[in-house]
Amino acid sequence: MRRQEKELKDPEAVAEVLDGAEWGVLGLVSPQGAPILVPLNFVRLDGKVYFHGAHAGEKMEALRHHRQATFLVVDAYAQIPSYAFDPERACPASQYFRSVLLHGTLGEVEDPARKAAVLDALMRRLQPEGGYRPITAEDPMYAGSVGAVAILELTVERSSAKCEMGQRLTPAKRDSVRALLERRGTPTDLRTLEAMGAGPGSPGSGPEAPGAAPAS
Amino acid sequence: MRRQEKELKDPEAVAEVLDGAEWGVLGLVSPQGAPILVPLNFVRLDGKVYFHGAHAGEKMEALRHHRQATFLVVDAYAQIPSYAFDPERACPASQYFRSVLLHGTLGEVEDPARKAAVLDALMRRLQPEGGYRPITAEDPMYAGSVGAVAILELTVERSSAKCEMGQRLTPAKRDSVRALLERRGTPTDLRTLEAMGAGPGSPGSGPEAPGAAPAS
Repeated sequence: MRRQEKELKDPEAVAEVLDGAEWGVLGLVSPQGAPILVPLNFVRLDGKVYFHGAHAGEKMEALRHHRQATFLVVDAYAQIPSYAFDPERACPASQYFRSVLLHGTLGEVEDPARKAAVLDALMRRLQPEGGYRPITAEDPMYAGSVGAVAILELTVERSSAKCEMGQRLTPAKRDSVRALLERRGTPTDLRTLEAMGAGPGSPGSGPEAPGAAPAS
Repeated sequence: MRRQEKELKDPEAVAEVLDGAEWGVLGLVSPQGAPILVPLNFVRLDGKVYFHGAHAGEKMEALRHHRQATFLVVDAYAQIPSYAFDPERACPASQYFRSVLLHGTLGEVEDPARKAAVLDALMRRLQPEGGYRPITAEDPMYAGSVGAVAILELTVERSSAKCEMGQRLTPAKRDSVRALLERRGTPTDLRTLEAMGAGPGSPGSGPEAPGAAPAS
């Protein structure tokens, strides 16, 4: 990562981004060397990341050719207008966000019991209120579907995370941002206010986080 | 695209996805052949797509190696729980979304006047309420910043778009989804209801759109 001050180092904040998102973007490289991007729901299980899809299609073809993959999860917050800081200069306008990039190797899960466990974990995550029979490979209601679906497993080899939540701003400038978000008051603004927290470094603050630096 | 019934063919709906999104994911291939994903704000201008960033960094290095790029914009809607259709089977659970993929060639804009025009278009898009002095390359307040920023230009060679908004469902099943979204009533649910429209094929319906097919 080029800009160290944007690095999100707090493992809890990284987990929060991953667990708070319903979907991310899986990046692969086609047999012709072109980037392939696929938006996918996902679930983390036993330290790996899982996706489901069809056995046919572009991503499965790419996977057979080249197993290196990147998965990006973005938690987008408010657009901060330039006039929060300056009545004339457009430059201070920015987009607040947190994002996590996972780099690793992608493989296909073949074992029906494991496939069912992944699908069940995905359901628990995306439909936590329940309202379905747990998925097992033995259940005659599910055996066919478990066989028909492809389950992809990302073994993470390297990860990085970024955060732009005004953590580099002076306390006075952070107060300007807070005042603007309160005044504008969209659902995204209120969520951003909450995520900015009370202190100058949160979220992602703490002993491991970079301190506030002067704004550019 | 493998599943024709998910194709989003209506050019207006495609433009709506692109113009409604504040950010997308740019996909590149690293000199080592690995996928690189970068979340970026963007603006469309004169048929091309533009991004801004620093001259240094991973994406600029990748770009010098390999100019083929993919840009993905996702408009995510509600998670539809399985129990909207079935009290036991988890399989009908789905994520509604619209997405657009642009494939093309990425280059860097060098001309200061063009760079300023792109930055100004980006500001008009992300800060439509104004509150800044228009960006021009001659303005002494902006000349330094315009020089310092890198502007990337994506020349789109091929595009595709997908839509999963229950358009393949029977009218009775679509009514079940609508009832559930009304009952649950989160902001995303209400936005999904609006985007589903009144008819069985909207959005993206019309003479060019695939008709409703039986649900799988």
